[in-house]
Amino acid sequence: MATEQEPMTPPEQPGETPSQAPEADEQTAALDEMRDRWRRALADLDNLRKRHAKELERVRAEERARTAGAWLPVLDNLERALAHSDSDPSAVLKGVEAVRDQAVEVLRGLGYPRYEETGVPFDPTRHEVVGVVDTPDAEPNTVAQVVSPGYGADGKQLRPAFVVVSKRQE
Amino acid sequence: MATEQEPMTPPEQPGETPSQAPEADEQTAALDEMRDRWRRALADLDNLRKRHAKELERVRAEERARTAGAWLPVLDNLERALAHSDSDPSAVLKGVEAVRDQAVEVLRGLGYPRYEETGVPFDPTRHEVVGVVDTPDAEPNTVAQVVSPGYGADGKQLRPAFVVVSKRQE
Repeated sequence: MATEQEPMTPPEQPGETPSQAPEADEQTAALDEMRDRWRRALADLDNLRKRHAKELERVRAEERARTAGAWLPVLDNLERALAHSDSDPSAVLKGVEAVRDQAVEVLRGLGYPRYEETGVPFDPTRHEVVGVVDTPDAEPNTVAQVVSPGYGADGKQLRPAFVVVSKRQE
Repeated sequence: MATEQEPMTPPEQPGETPSQAPEADEQTAALDEMRDRWRRALADLDNLRKRHAKELERVRAEERARTAGAWLPVLDNLERALAHSDSDPSAVLKGVEAVRDQAVEVLRGLGYPRYEETGVPFDPTRHEVVGVVDTPDAEPNTVAQVVSPGYGADGKQLRPAFVVVSKRQE
């Protein structure tokens, strides 16, 4: 498309010959105007492309800062919990458990809720099978055990749950 | 711009009268071609705008997932550390300290290195003053104490360091 923007020899110059008919003048003017519109549209396209590239960079940086910033309070609390380490080890434990809950909450807030249900049907979009067990009393092809929880919802998966499923009946 | 895209009455129809001169036919063809170019440029503009909007959404979601995903191993390790809580409290502490270091490393990897130097000149772009101390042996207007560390670099600040500065000399 850019090659079309090369300056063209303006065909309106023959209009300088005084012998031209009035209708021809009108047509030349119409052509000039149309060429002008076309050039402006090409310039708009070019500007839009440049603006687009800049905006993508801006949005990317903005989203990274927003997402990373959501974790700062988690880190702060982790350090606060550790600050008690000399005095009271059980206080550390309580603090760290609260930090874990906060981290799970941050992920939920970013659109990635945690899931770790057992007994639900195996779903290849949310579960990754790491093992199979033969449990006669369990419904076949359901999640028998969650080895590590999953994060995400509605096809917006951050990580699938790693699960052990009950054996398919044969 | 969009209003210009309304279908125009095509002025090339008078070309059907056989009485027209050959030069006029050429001019009509030139105008047709130019109008065609203009319309294609307008259509390109429209498509680019639509593609842009979709791409912004995609880039935003992608960056959020990438940034949130970088924290998942931190959460995993936090849980691993907590799993030892019953057996050995000092193992918990060691594990949690490792998690803290990992969290700092994640932020560095995202472009937000931690800083908490004392003795450096006060810099309003990186420091937020939460107190002033009168320390005769300290260089005036330097960071005497870091209350909470800062994260970021080169004007890409996630959070300034909260600092106590030494008093300016009067």
